[in-house]
Amino acid sequence: MATIKAAILGFGTVGQGIYHILNEKREELRDKLGLEIEVAKILVRDTTKERIPGTAHLLTDNIDDCLSVKGIQVVFEAIVNEEPAFTYLKKAVEHKCHVITANKVMYAKRGPELEQLAKQHGVFVGFEATTAGGVPVIKTMKNILLVNDVSRIQGILNGTTNYILTKMRAEGWTFEEALKEAQALGYAEADPFNDISGQDAFKKLMILSSLAFDEQPNWADVEVIGIDTISAEQVADATEKGLRYRHVAEVEKYSDGTIYARVAPMLVDKEHPLYPVDEVFNAVTMETNYIGTLTLVGPGAGMYPTASVMVEDYAEIIGKRAGFVVTI
Amino acid sequence: MATIKAAILGFGTVGQGIYHILNEKREELRDKLGLEIEVAKILVRDTTKERIPGTAHLLTDNIDDCLSVKGIQVVFEAIVNEEPAFTYLKKAVEHKCHVITANKVMYAKRGPELEQLAKQHGVFVGFEATTAGGVPVIKTMKNILLVNDVSRIQGILNGTTNYILTKMRAEGWTFEEALKEAQALGYAEADPFNDISGQDAFKKLMILSSLAFDEQPNWADVEVIGIDTISAEQVADATEKGLRYRHVAEVEKYSDGTIYARVAPMLVDKEHPLYPVDEVFNAVTMETNYIGTLTLVGPGAGMYPTASVMVEDYAEIIGKRAGFVVTI
Repeated sequence: MATIKAAILGFGTVGQGIYHILNEKREELRDKLGLEIEVAKILVRDTTKERIPGTAHLLTDNIDDCLSVKGIQVVFEAIVNEEPAFTYLKKAVEHKCHVITANKVMYAKRGPELEQLAKQHGVFVGFEATTAGGVPVIKTMKNILLVNDVSRIQGILNGTTNYILTKMRAEGWTFEEALKEAQALGYAEADPFNDISGQDAFKKLMILSSLAFDEQPNWADVEVIGIDTISAEQVADATEKGLRYRHVAEVEKYSDGTIYARVAPMLVDKEHPLYPVDEVFNAVTMETNYIGTLTLVGPGAGMYPTASVMVEDYAEIIGKRAGFVVTI
Repeated sequence: MATIKAAILGFGTVGQGIYHILNEKREELRDKLGLEIEVAKILVRDTTKERIPGTAHLLTDNIDDCLSVKGIQVVFEAIVNEEPAFTYLKKAVEHKCHVITANKVMYAKRGPELEQLAKQHGVFVGFEATTAGGVPVIKTMKNILLVNDVSRIQGILNGTTNYILTKMRAEGWTFEEALKEAQALGYAEADPFNDISGQDAFKKLMILSSLAFDEQPNWADVEVIGIDTISAEQVADATEKGLRYRHVAEVEKYSDGTIYARVAPMLVDKEHPLYPVDEVFNAVTMETNYIGTLTLVGPGAGMYPTASVMVEDYAEIIGKRAGFVVTI
């Protein structure tokens, strides 16, 4: 049985999730794909900290260590922020490795460049995990775009803010109380700025804009409004009127070719598809010319949803017989 | 530029939709896939009736006429009922044609047999259009199953009954009035038995059962309850209580391996994901082990949604470089 060697860059929640799934599903993946996969290196900042027992010997803080593994062909990347992630993935692609990333900040900004480079080197970039966690919006949209045009995308793209808005309504908590609980549960980062300001949703929206329209609006022109100004009173008032706050990201291409995008809180009534989308769930609605309106709803965060779609990306690339070199 | 020759079997709403999309998207499909596609034959029962101007010379009532076209490699099938559809597709597969079907009655019963045959002959069977119209539930589930196990599926799988239930509530129509309008709009067949009895949803549910669990429950053991016994009074009463009737199909695999399936009307409240799913929309919710609960919502009927996913199936098969013989 041939074996594919892989490296995991970043070993936080998502990176560990990938490791677990690849181990738990080892035999099934082998049977389905006809290839073994072996995690040969794990890149972390602090190599003295063993996060999963039995992985100490795999740890390195040097990308060249990862890429010098004999037979390395896949790199899973789950680091936060543009750098050093982009530099690492650029190196990996130049080394003819397929790359699978969950890094929305990097991909929103450098995705087109990375894709171009990957094309030149004959490898693939999997980026399902960058947007909407476990909801397969990237694959679905890629597939729909084979036949349809997409004119508009609207959705809840951040699980943390949706969790906070849900708890403010359902539990009567203040914004601060809900945020604290989101942090305790691991949904929100220690610095929750990117989530609550809408910057995280904005990056995901830009990734969807690139995919659907092959371009992004000028970032500086996009209005991005967070949820931190919403008071417990406003939420209670909305509830009384049968309305719910949702933090909605939307992007639309007008017939004159202009792209309009916005991230902001929105009040929806019970007829709106986003009304029942509570907790850390994400939702994406696409308007298309032939199919009409299609909506996907699922978990927008968490170790396993995100890691799972990354392993699916791997399986999809394998399914393409994507220039994998089979070494026995 | 190489050209793929195709035949369309059945030239009703969906068959005509395929023809329109293949013409409208001719250049785009050529650019994206690197291959031309040409509809070389259209199989109908009555060859004297030209449904789209300029297609009379393509009509035939003989499957052998279709398969004897030089270079024929794809057959789109949009016929109703098991036969003669299965016999036609069997012939097509034995002729090494890829087949793409919208025929749920045939596929629910003969799908496994057809897939087996296709495997032997090195061709693919596209069946996205058999279930939930324009909602890409088949592709999504296939992809999810690469890594996840699916334990339960629940959904609205028939657009006609959902339309009827919606209009009974929103317009205060009786069942008969709503059915009549559904027929006038082309949603319901002249004989609406399969829709309103739940038999249509049942067939789609069996297709999903095969896909998720690799088996179907014994058909005779499945309780299938239609919507024709729901009165205008019951609907009004539910509305007053804040509830809505949905015609729900569900299938579940228990931990002991038993598969339980059911189709029946169900009352849902405003917290239920199916609450806002009105009109001819379909919805499918899948419970999975890693991703969690994923829901897809979209148009469950209509010429373009269904035809569109069939052309996507074609594009996907091309993307697999699936043994197409390129003839210049």
